[in-house]
Formats: sequence, C-alpha cells, structure tokens
Amino acid sequence: MTLRHSFIEVEPESHFPIQNLPYGVFRPQQGEPPRIGVAIGSYVLDLAVLDEAGCFSHIPDMTGKRIFAQHTLNAFMELGREAWRATRAAITQLLDAEEPTLRDNELLRSAAFHQQSEVQMLLPVQIGDYTDFYASKSHATNVGTLFRGKENALMPNWLHLPVGYHGRASSIVISGTNVRRPNGQIKLPDSEAPSFSPSRQLDYELEVGWIIGTGNELGKPIPIHEAEDHIFGLVLVNDWSARDIQAWEYQPLGPFLGKNFATSISPWVVPLEALTPFRIPAPKQTPVPLPYLTQDSSASFDIQLEATLQTSGSEQPITITSSNYSHLYWTIAQQIAHHTVGGCNLQPGDLLASGTISGETKESRGSMLELTWRGTEPIQLPSGEERVWLADGDRLTLSGYCQGDGYRVGFGEVTGRVLAAF
Amino acid sequence: MTLRHSFIEVEPESHFPIQNLPYGVFRPQQGEPPRIGVAIGSYVLDLAVLDEAGCFSHIPDMTGKRIFAQHTLNAFMELGREAWRATRAAITQLLDAEEPTLRDNELLRSAAFHQQSEVQMLLPVQIGDYTDFYASKSHATNVGTLFRGKENALMPNWLHLPVGYHGRASSIVISGTNVRRPNGQIKLPDSEAPSFSPSRQLDYELEVGWIIGTGNELGKPIPIHEAEDHIFGLVLVNDWSARDIQAWEYQPLGPFLGKNFATSISPWVVPLEALTPFRIPAPKQTPVPLPYLTQDSSASFDIQLEATLQTSGSEQPITITSSNYSHLYWTIAQQIAHHTVGGCNLQPGDLLASGTISGETKESRGSMLELTWRGTEPIQLPSGEERVWLADGDRLTLSGYCQGDGYRVGFGEVTGRVLAAF
Repeated sequence: MTLRHSFIEVEPESHFPIQNLPYGVFRPQQGEPPRIGVAIGSYVLDLAVLDEAGCFSHIPDMTGKRIFAQHTLNAFMELGREAWRATRAAITQLLDAEEPTLRDNELLRSAAFHQQSEVQMLLPVQIGDYTDFYASKSHATNVGTLFRGKENALMPNWLHLPVGYHGRASSIVISGTNVRRPNGQIKLPDSEAPSFSPSRQLDYELEVGWIIGTGNELGKPIPIHEAEDHIFGLVLVNDWSARDIQAWEYQPLGPFLGKNFATSISPWVVPLEALTPFRIPAPKQTPVPLPYLTQDSSASFDIQLEATLQTSGSEQPITITSSNYSHLYWTIAQQIAHHTVGGCNLQPGDLLASGTISGETKESRGSMLELTWRGTEPIQLPSGEERVWLADGDRLTLSGYCQGDGYRVGFGEVTGRVLAAF
Repeated sequence: MTLRHSFIEVEPESHFPIQNLPYGVFRPQQGEPPRIGVAIGSYVLDLAVLDEAGCFSHIPDMTGKRIFAQHTLNAFMELGREAWRATRAAITQLLDAEEPTLRDNELLRSAAFHQQSEVQMLLPVQIGDYTDFYASKSHATNVGTLFRGKENALMPNWLHLPVGYHGRASSIVISGTNVRRPNGQIKLPDSEAPSFSPSRQLDYELEVGWIIGTGNELGKPIPIHEAEDHIFGLVLVNDWSARDIQAWEYQPLGPFLGKNFATSISPWVVPLEALTPFRIPAPKQTPVPLPYLTQDSSASFDIQLEATLQTSGSEQPITITSSNYSHLYWTIAQQIAHHTVGGCNLQPGDLLASGTISGETKESRGSMLELTWRGTEPIQLPSGEERVWLADGDRLTLSGYCQGDGYRVGFGEVTGRVLAAF
C-alpha cells in the first residue's frame, strides 16, 4: 500500500501528516472566538469553516449544531465513536492529494488554513475530572526504593490493580503557560517543625493522558473490552510536582498541594484511531490480574517520548529523558475498567493520565526525582551548570511521536517555564 | 430586637425560617425546566418568577441575565458577595410579614410559591472540583488508632496543616439518590491474593461541605483573612465509603474507588450570612500554626448534626450519630488558605468538605468505622437487628441545624438508600 499524501506539503519529520489529524482548539487572532481545528503539516485546518461550507453535512447528529465553532471539543466528543470516525474520514478525504474539493477551491482554502505559528492554542477540552495513575513499574519501584527502601519498593497492591488518585482539574493549563514555583509547608530533615517557603524540589513528570470522549452512567461499570470505545484521544502531560511539599503532606490521603499548583497538557489531541499502526502487546503481567482486568489484545503503543531542559543560561534544550509509552505496565483499558468497576462515572472531557513513564534504564527515567536519585546524582549540563531539581527560568518540554515508515504520528509538545515564587 | 417573621407561616422547628433562606435548584413539575428558588417554611419561592416580575431590577449585574432561570447557581455565585447580599436582603424584605409587595399580590404569589413536597430538587451547583479534608481531630485519631495503633494515631503533619485530598466530582449526587453498593478488589485478612466482590464494609461519613462562590486566579493564593469572602454557603455531605476497598487500595496515593462510587449532598445551600448568629470560637490549636494559617476571629459554628439509620425491617429511623460542627479542629478559612497557598485556583461551584465530623464521645462518631470500632462493637438496633456496616436496604440520613432563640437555621437533610451490588 502506498502512503497516503495530502496536497498540503508535510515533511517526513513533521508530527502532523495526514495519518495523524489531531484535534485542537485555537483562536485565529486576538479577539476572535475560539474554534476547533486539526493540525496538518505546519497548518491548522479550521473545521468551523469547513462545517459552514457544508463539508460535514452528510454526518448525522452534526447538522445545525455548529459543533466546531464551540470553545471545547466536548460537544463533538459526546456525539460518539461513529461521528468521530465519519468526521476523520471526511477530513482525510478533503486533505487527500487527489481530492479537488478543498485543494482547488482557493476561497475556501484561504479561509480554512492558518499557520500554526500564528494562532493561539487553547485547552482543547473542558476537563471535568482528572485522574492520575501510577502505571509504570519502574517509576513505582524507583520512587518506592527512594522513600521506603528496596525491600518495600512496590506496595502489596501494585501488581494487582492500577493504583490511581484524583488530581486537580482546575489547575490544568495549556502548553506554553508559565508555571509559578509554589510556596508551601516543608519539613526540613534537621528541623523539629515545618517551615513555609518556596519549594526547593520542583520536578516534572513525563506522562501521557487519555481524553474520555464518551462516559458511562453512575453505577454502570465499563467492561474492559469496551473501554477503548470511550477514548477520544491522547495528549502529553507534565504533572509538575513539588517533592518537598508532597513528602510532608501526602500521608495518609495522597498528594495534594505537591501537585495541584499546575499540570500542563499539549494542545493537540491525537485520535486513538491514528495510533492503530503503532499498537504493540502490553507487558506480560505476573500475577495474572483478576478477570475484570484481563485483556488479550495489543493494548500498548510504541510511542517515543522525550523530555528536554533548557536553562535560562543555555541556548539549546538538552534531552534529559528518553522514554517510551511501552514501559507502562497497566494499559489504558485496564485503567478505565478499574476506574469504573465500583460504579464511578466517567464523563466526556475527563483526563486519565498514566503517571510518570520510566523504563529500566537511567536515561528513560521520567522525573528529576528518579534521574538525580532524589538529589544525590546531579545532572551535568553542557553549559557547565548542574541540576538536581528545576531552577527558576528553566524550560521543560515534553514531546513524543510514533515512527511510521516515512511518516510520524506526533503529539507536538507540552512546554512550560518555571517562574520564581511570589 | 424582636424576631423577624414572614407572612409565610413557619413552625419553630422548621429548618427554613426567614432567617435562613437557603438556595436550591428545583424542577416544579416533570418536564419543566429547572430554576432557582429559596426554601421558606414548607415552600419553595421561585426566584425566576420574582426576577421576571422585576423584584431584583435594582441589583447591578443582574439585569437581563435571567440568572435564576439557570440550571445551577454558578452564574449567580459568580456575581460575587455584594450581589448575594443585595439579593438576600431583597428576598428577606419581600417575605417580611409587614411587606405587601408579594404578600398582597395573589397572582404573583400563586406563580412564585411551590410546595417543597411537590417539586424535584436537583444538584444546586455544577461542581468543578471536589476536595475532601480530614479536619476532625477525634476522627483522625480514631482512624489512626484503628489502622496504625494508638502510638501513631495522628500522622506528624496533622497538627500543622489541614490534610486534604482531591475527591471525585462526577459522582456527587443529590439527596434521595439511591446508592449502589460497589464491587471491587478486596484483600481478605486470611487470603494471599485479593478477590473481587461487593464491598462488605460499606460506610457513611457525616460531613459538612462549603460551596465556593467566587474563585481565585491560578498562582494567586487567597489570604486567610479573605477566605470567607469566597464562600457562598454550606451543604451536608455524606461521603459514602467502602472501607475494605479503601484499605487495600489507598497506599501510597490515597482513597480512590473506596470513595468515588457516590458522594451525596443536601439540596439547600445555606448562605454563610445565615450562620452569623451561630459563630463560635474555633478550638485552640497547639502548636500554633504557621502565619498563613493564623486567624483570630470566631471561625467555627455551632451546628448540631445527626445521622439516622433506618433498616428495611424497621419503621422508624434511629439516631446513630449526634455530633456538632464545632468538633472540627481546622476552620474553613484555614482550609481555603491552605488549599490555595501554593497557587491552586478555586472556582465557583467547587465543593470543600470537612471530612468526617467526630467528637470525643462515642455517640458523636460520624462513621460506622468509628462507631463499631472497625466492626468489633456492633450497633444494636431497637428492631433487634445489629449492624457493623451498612446493609442493603438501609437508609442513611444526615441532618443538621443551628438552634436560635425561637427559630432554627437548618440544612434539611441528605438521605440515600443502599442498593444491592449488581
């Protein structure tokens, strides 16, 4: 099969070929209302314009709703899987190199395409609830070893269920938002009492997040074999963490202020369908999980992931993590089945993040906590600087893509710069 | 000062005198759109009707917005404290026994008043994020003693900060909603591996919740002396808990499926202003908390709280908890100041719950976990039945009020019946 091409030129290293077509919400110019688009090459294709031109009039449930003129993807996602599939097929056809409808309509083209560099990207979805899992075995083992010693690294429950917790939805921000170093209570090792100060241990966490497209009714669990039908797509997630605040506060109810000052996500939601060619088997699980968590399909994905750090004193970002989605022990279907098995309802726009994705090698560790082994092994940067935690002015960027034969299905990036505490 | 009265007759034991006027969202009849009302005696006063009749035309920011014809209180709350105060003053005046405007307008009266027993109450606010605290010292001590022994009952952080965690917003339901017993992973004490079954340890938690009326910008903490300005009002909260699921899952990231199958709230939001006569000093705190948590006003409230249990085999509910809001160690202002001190943003409609409110006496314990001392001391019911945890068919109801001189400012109730697991 020859590779499908668009009449829009797309470099082989671009994250956004016609095979991807991720959805995002953008503002074309200051003062203009936000609308929904897909990324293609270095362009955004304005779906509200296409909709107005009648390009989606054949899709049931979409007529008259101005669904792409809305400020979030939620209403579109609520239409469900068939509508997503039909929309994706229609956009793919419209962008095809051989298809004249859009290619040869200069007026429509000039209205529908914007340069990505010229638009402002906004949060793509209204996130009702945010759940963060803890699904990388290497990450859980590293953190457990650092906090409780090697013998008790993994808690007894870890191999039996995908451990997760509720995060803070209100402080989820779009890539590019600067992140203010939080103040908080910290218990220094040599002090009797806690003190109040800016966090000294600011960290990032390299994660991937799944956007729920359609939910379930309260009290009606989602069986594991239906779990993926509820997924709209994926984003990159940086779950910024203040390790010193977290260490003091987290017992017995889990992370709170150590996490809720900011969580950054990438602007483009990559459709689950675009990842089909990159499916791989999930890791073998021992012990075999309980039946409600048992799955036999190719439930993981080969997604290369990277974190780069650029200090204010350096000209180039430096790669500090090279990881892969495949390091996750628990699959997204297992996480959804577990999340809902007691009856909890998911809703369109919910974000389910993976937790830090670390592999077994040192360079694949997805946080400073692990990379510097809780501050004992500083990262040496080419600029001569070193880091054990993030410093003010540092820019941390996550990126990721699936490598196809001659093309990439990419996530773009999620980036943020650390501002000094107030 | 003589007590103000309404032309609507209100019994002295009613929860809803003219001194209260809590807000709720109701549907007058099936098929009709929801709107906002206040409770007065056994009636609901329809504010959308009053608004249409021009009763609030003197209040800035309210004109032309049909703010009481909306399905939640969020838009009204966003108007801020001055608008709340002006609205409350206007409603109080309209309901006053000496005020003819509404009293003598039969047409308006017949359109504006509904019997509470004839309307359907709905969730009063759209809850963005739900945070649950752990603010009763007796509760934290009881739970700590049960799980970790008397010596380690309170974690080292507990006296220094109001411990809290993020809860699940999507599964918050209105009073009257039946609650399905969750299935989940449970590790029985004599088993090597976890098993999957309905929870055997279903519990309630007697809590009070604060509704945030106006939020703060991300990165801009709310100072403690401004914290109460952001509060719209209070509701009762039953934070249903599956103790066996919770015990197996909660380490190290906190409660998840043990809590997220349902949280019930009462329908009437009692305005903070209505509680002014019932302010009392908060407990003395030793050690004195850090300056950002230091407060010197009357920061607690005298609110009598009760939990009743009615089994399917009994004709009357039996009181199993008699507690009081004043048992809380941490104040709501301290919780808000702490929640935001690292920059986390609160938003209109957020719910901040107190955690289980237990006092020092046995009858004031706000959960079965504590009342039965983790199942070792069954509750004997007059029907001859006994309970260590909630059984299918049991109805659990929380209620609460402030006792004034000749009147009560009450919360009504939050009730739910346990359904058997699927």
